[in-house]
Amino acid sequence: MTQPLGIGMVGYGFMGRAHSQAWRTVGHMFELPLMPRLAAICGRNEHAVRAVAEQQGWPAWETDWRRLIERDDVDLVDVSTPGASHAEIAIAALEAGKHVLCEKPLANSVEEGEAMVAAAEQAAERGVHAMVGLNYRRVPAMAVARQLVADGRLGEIRHVRGTYLQDWLVDPDFPLVWRLQADEAGSGALGDLGVHLVDLLQFVTGDTLATVVGQAPTFIEERRAPDGEPGEVTVDDAALFQGRFTGGAVASLEVSRFATGRKNALRLELNGSLGSLSFDLERLNELELYEAGDNAGFRRVVVTEPTDPYMAAWWPPGHVIGWEHTFVHEMRDFVEGIAAGHPVAPTFADALQVQRVLEAVSRSHESGAWELVEERPVARRAAG
Amino acid sequence: MTQPLGIGMVGYGFMGRAHSQAWRTVGHMFELPLMPRLAAICGRNEHAVRAVAEQQGWPAWETDWRRLIERDDVDLVDVSTPGASHAEIAIAALEAGKHVLCEKPLANSVEEGEAMVAAAEQAAERGVHAMVGLNYRRVPAMAVARQLVADGRLGEIRHVRGTYLQDWLVDPDFPLVWRLQADEAGSGALGDLGVHLVDLLQFVTGDTLATVVGQAPTFIEERRAPDGEPGEVTVDDAALFQGRFTGGAVASLEVSRFATGRKNALRLELNGSLGSLSFDLERLNELELYEAGDNAGFRRVVVTEPTDPYMAAWWPPGHVIGWEHTFVHEMRDFVEGIAAGHPVAPTFADALQVQRVLEAVSRSHESGAWELVEERPVARRAAG
Amino acid sequence: MTQPLGIGMVGYGFMGRAHSQAWRTVGHMFELPLMPRLAAICGRNEHAVRAVAEQQGWPAWETDWRRLIERDDVDLVDVSTPGASHAEIAIAALEAGKHVLCEKPLANSVEEGEAMVAAAEQAAERGVHAMVGLNYRRVPAMAVARQLVADGRLGEIRHVRGTYLQDWLVDPDFPLVWRLQADEAGSGALGDLGVHLVDLLQFVTGDTLATVVGQAPTFIEERRAPDGEPGEVTVDDAALFQGRFTGGAVASLEVSRFATGRKNALRLELNGSLGSLSFDLERLNELELYEAGDNAGFRRVVVTEPTDPYMAAWWPPGHVIGWEHTFVHEMRDFVEGIAAGHPVAPTFADALQVQRVLEAVSRSHESGAWELVEERPVARRAAG
Amino acid sequence: MTQPLGIGMVGYGFMGRAHSQAWRTVGHMFELPLMPRLAAICGRNEHAVRAVAEQQGWPAWETDWRRLIERDDVDLVDVSTPGASHAEIAIAALEAGKHVLCEKPLANSVEEGEAMVAAAEQAAERGVHAMVGLNYRRVPAMAVARQLVADGRLGEIRHVRGTYLQDWLVDPDFPLVWRLQADEAGSGALGDLGVHLVDLLQFVTGDTLATVVGQAPTFIEERRAPDGEPGEVTVDDAALFQGRFTGGAVASLEVSRFATGRKNALRLELNGSLGSLSFDLERLNELELYEAGDNAGFRRVVVTEPTDPYMAAWWPPGHVIGWEHTFVHEMRDFVEGIAAGHPVAPTFADALQVQRVLEAVSRSHESGAWELVEERPVARRAAG
Repeated sequence: MTQPLGIGMVGYGFMGRAHSQAWRTVGHMFELPLMPRLAAICGRNEHAVRAVAEQQGWPAWETDWRRLIERDDVDLVDVSTPGASHAEIAIAALEAGKHVLCEKPLANSVEEGEAMVAAAEQAAERGVHAMVGLNYRRVPAMAVARQLVADGRLGEIRHVRGTYLQDWLVDPDFPLVWRLQADEAGSGALGDLGVHLVDLLQFVTGDTLATVVGQAPTFIEERRAPDGEPGEVTVDDAALFQGRFTGGAVASLEVSRFATGRKNALRLELNGSLGSLSFDLERLNELELYEAGDNAGFRRVVVTEPTDPYMAAWWPPGHVIGWEHTFVHEMRDFVEGIAAGHPVAPTFADALQVQRVLEAVSRSHESGAWELVEERPVARRAAG
Repeated sequence: MTQPLGIGMVGYGFMGRAHSQAWRTVGHMFELPLMPRLAAICGRNEHAVRAVAEQQGWPAWETDWRRLIERDDVDLVDVSTPGASHAEIAIAALEAGKHVLCEKPLANSVEEGEAMVAAAEQAAERGVHAMVGLNYRRVPAMAVARQLVADGRLGEIRHVRGTYLQDWLVDPDFPLVWRLQADEAGSGALGDLGVHLVDLLQFVTGDTLATVVGQAPTFIEERRAPDGEPGEVTVDDAALFQGRFTGGAVASLEVSRFATGRKNALRLELNGSLGSLSFDLERLNELELYEAGDNAGFRRVVVTEPTDPYMAAWWPPGHVIGWEHTFVHEMRDFVEGIAAGHPVAPTFADALQVQRVLEAVSRSHESGAWELVEERPVARRAAG
Repeated sequence: MTQPLGIGMVGYGFMGRAHSQAWRTVGHMFELPLMPRLAAICGRNEHAVRAVAEQQGWPAWETDWRRLIERDDVDLVDVSTPGASHAEIAIAALEAGKHVLCEKPLANSVEEGEAMVAAAEQAAERGVHAMVGLNYRRVPAMAVARQLVADGRLGEIRHVRGTYLQDWLVDPDFPLVWRLQADEAGSGALGDLGVHLVDLLQFVTGDTLATVVGQAPTFIEERRAPDGEPGEVTVDDAALFQGRFTGGAVASLEVSRFATGRKNALRLELNGSLGSLSFDLERLNELELYEAGDNAGFRRVVVTEPTDPYMAAWWPPGHVIGWEHTFVHEMRDFVEGIAAGHPVAPTFADALQVQRVLEAVSRSHESGAWELVEERPVARRAAG
Repeated sequence: MTQPLGIGMVGYGFMGRAHSQAWRTVGHMFELPLMPRLAAICGRNEHAVRAVAEQQGWPAWETDWRRLIERDDVDLVDVSTPGASHAEIAIAALEAGKHVLCEKPLANSVEEGEAMVAAAEQAAERGVHAMVGLNYRRVPAMAVARQLVADGRLGEIRHVRGTYLQDWLVDPDFPLVWRLQADEAGSGALGDLGVHLVDLLQFVTGDTLATVVGQAPTFIEERRAPDGEPGEVTVDDAALFQGRFTGGAVASLEVSRFATGRKNALRLELNGSLGSLSFDLERLNELELYEAGDNAGFRRVVVTEPTDPYMAAWWPPGHVIGWEHTFVHEMRDFVEGIAAGHPVAPTFADALQVQRVLEAVSRSHESGAWELVEERPVARRAAG
């Protein structure tokens, strides 16, 4: 009989719903060494969290995350709150001996992130593990892409190109919500979308950005709060930056919440000396791959074969999966790592390095010049 | 407190897994008037069904479907077995007062289908309902398409064009499995893929095929059984047919398991006097829509807005769903119908009409001439 | 010094303009053994033909095509009139010892076509050649496709699928022009578009349709003539047919002038035992090719490499060509054949066989049954 | 009778062939106020220029461009040589009273460009006109795009995004040709491709780049000359830059000759407050347009309607044009401007401004910081 793994979750917004669905699903679709079992969910508003618990199938609820951490039936804490509270909760959970899955971004500042990395390193020595939920690594097409690059199928990578475009701020009457205020959200498109884009491009290339230059404009500087009061937007609406990878590739990146008509358009392209690949998250079951040869051309690979990463667990070829499946894959990988006693990427250290890239972009926006991505000594990285 | 609805499922192959996932999910993602609760699963092989029950979260199992039907904790029987056993199980379940969700095709013969329709009609009088799982109606883009046609946005429909192409039989060494033998499978591509294609095109147009002509070739007539013995393929590998709709539109349809490189390519196009639409199941979150006007062109609508059918239950715009979500939607609709006491399309009568279309194609393959789709009096249709 | 080849053209409508541009161009872009020289153009209306001659660069004009044929400076007669006059002009020109390039369709009836074939055979014995302008064979991507099939790269062809869709008749106020009247136009979409589609599919497969079944509906049966008088549409608006090729492949074909939003959408797909290809004339520089293998997928080949057929004469890779270039290629091939003294496909006999296919579709429309494509003894075919 | 306009061309490489074809064609496809007549072509190698003249239909040739300029039968000098000689030839031609069509780039340095602008201004006072051949403005889809922006259909433009990607330098054995040496070519991808991209984005937006930051890397720094001797590549292989437009939009741009699999991929996207558009030169007959509304989505407009710019001169809807047609359109516009006595954009001053943008990118590559695009007083701009 498979041993259970009790899950406690903090946060119950949109991301909480996605994680709940994934935790309910992962043990049924994959053969796991530990069986995740929903234990308790936590939110500050008792009325609300109780309703969510009932709707989402959590048998218990808490209103104080410290109580959640203390529960004996919780082995793993899933931190799905906004970034401002990640450090406090995650560190406390790790210290209490609970594994931690922390939603991205790691934290709202590099300082908080560093404390989290330190806590994760200490916990790892006690066999307690921490992972960050940068779920787009778990798109099967992206796992294929990383493998193609690692196998040298594209040769030496020269160009990396990526955009992550949304349009939900185009309407000037969209209200001044917390995501548009720096003290709560940390940053705007840069932190929210840039963290995905940078992590994914570094994941696929197996390389890291060394230096960047860019800008992070705010197009609409004043909006009305939900109560009607005008207020200042204190985060960026978009960020455009370019960089150089440690291995020599050059990169163009752009994220925006003002790209009218683009809903969730994370697109990337890599050009290597032997081949190229491109991808669009709105068509996440497909990978475009170019390799030299007779009648060469970008081919549209439908990544749904049972030999493709993660796909044997799902459906026959051509029966596509969706966005939420990336969370199921993420949890599969983490649970396997926990059972095997090894860390699973992206670790807190991996995510901190992504934060350093974004911080360098912010510095460049201020300085108007190229900025180095700081390379302080960080924790040993997990394998992949 | 929402009243539970006990689910009993017969069958545990690929389709059983998809249904299990949908039954586990639907009550958490949608607000339902009755809460589906997995009660028991049934399969002939005790060892196997026990393993599936454990893996898929069914608290009990049976090895005789008659026992499943008798269980007090089962309110609804989900028939996910091959078509040959649908009639016997579904009729018995309805007679026992259990709602029935029957996977497509309705049955392997029109005669069986007629008996099922009769049983469903009698059951309906007792408030017991039956629905067929033609899940592609539940793709949100298809619900949008049907509404656009119904609202007259495309004008009078002139052309209907559809293909459903797979390629899993291209390899001549693929073995002679039950799906390639007429006595078990009824027919080949025609029954397996044609039933989806015909139902979907009739659903979107709101019209029915009146007359057809076509062929149903078998490309590889002998294959080896899994035990190595050569045997005859007794079903069609593909079917090409055209027809005329009652409302005057003409149609071209084609299904195949020999379309190299096409994995699950259900594609359709409608041309009306005012506009057109097209769709590809491998990109099921998208609908291509053409309407006359300045700078007209086919536009790629990403059907993930909260105002789109079913989508408010899922994720933000551009966060795509997958193939299995269609089952969740199907169950949502059926549970709502059961609670409201009204039938939900496609009823057994709807599905029987689809079988009659396919039977007319088979007759045309034999006769080499146009064949009328029989229109025996069938049960009153459900609304939509 | 390259010897000149005097060109005389009959007809000066849209097709005449396209041919004029091609004749002006071909000798400058390709190295030819004979140098085409515009000699004279012919049209019944002197005022109009004179204006066209001046605009299009023809140094002389005639109002009687018999006079054009008699001219000493005319070595080749380009017949770009409507189909009803093709037989008379082409036969007279061949008898007068002039090479003939005849626009498609060969003729409006099989009988006329047979007479043309006989005349072409007799002329060929005197070294006088005849070719039909089925220009889509000259799309470089289609020449690549034919070669791939001939080389066995797709294996045994099982499925052939093609549509040629336009929408210029959707408007019910479009007038009753000559193209909608059987006595002048022969047939409607079937003759106009079907001749292209059938020829192209037979060209690419290297095979011929043996038997067909289908329908050729007229959606709007009455329209007003340009003078306002209502009249009957006596040709088909669309044709849907399927068939079997001599070599065993099955085919689905459809042509229409009522496919709203489709402007010139000649699309085809072939599925073979080893691979597949697809093509769209609105993107005529591209070929989609599928071949089995790791990470297989349909690849978009941009057919603009100097090694691609015809392309060394044009521009660097990725610098696309357009529709009219197919005529330049057609003339290149014909001029080379004339100089070398051998026939160039499609010969009159090739085009007559296409007419026989369309005639069989018309018969099937009447009979409601499968019809054999007649195979009367026809002239020896040209090589390719 | 239309008055002739004698054309003299300097240069006979790939671009000379494209211009020859366009000059031969433009008067036949468009109704022009002056009829272009090929007069003479000029090249230094008599043997070669004589062969080209014969092949391309030029009745005379010269080996000294000064002689060409002096010819009485030359009214317009088409400068299709590499950029290093543009200034000398164009200024001399203007001073001799000949209209000048100068291929892009205007010149290899801003200084030369300034002299050319001064010469063009003086010539204009004498009714002698100068235009630069930035032909992608003449893609019909781009003219539509500019009009949509100008009409406010996209609202306020926030994002401008463009890439121009080729791959002909990926092979390390590609030789060290003149285009890879700074003294002859000026710069690499930046000058060759960047000039097109910057001009096109400024044309479509009707706005100018005010400030830029970027890099221009060289991936392979040593190659062998055609004679086998190794030598240094002294130009950039790619350039990545971003900028801000005067009107407030932000821009991401990238050009490369190392984008494996991309042949001539000039792609752009604009996001405005009301809509968006995107374009790909490899599909130059198509424009993707997004406008808010019910069932909104990017629509693929096939820009081949007779109401589309330039298209009434060509073929029916859906009959696509190719790359070389842009030159025909360019010449049409210039000839009309000459006849009407007004300048036609892009003037030398327009092209000089583009050079200033590229120069700012080069400076930024050196300085590692944002650089202003210089705005010295330049000649009055032509209207459009």
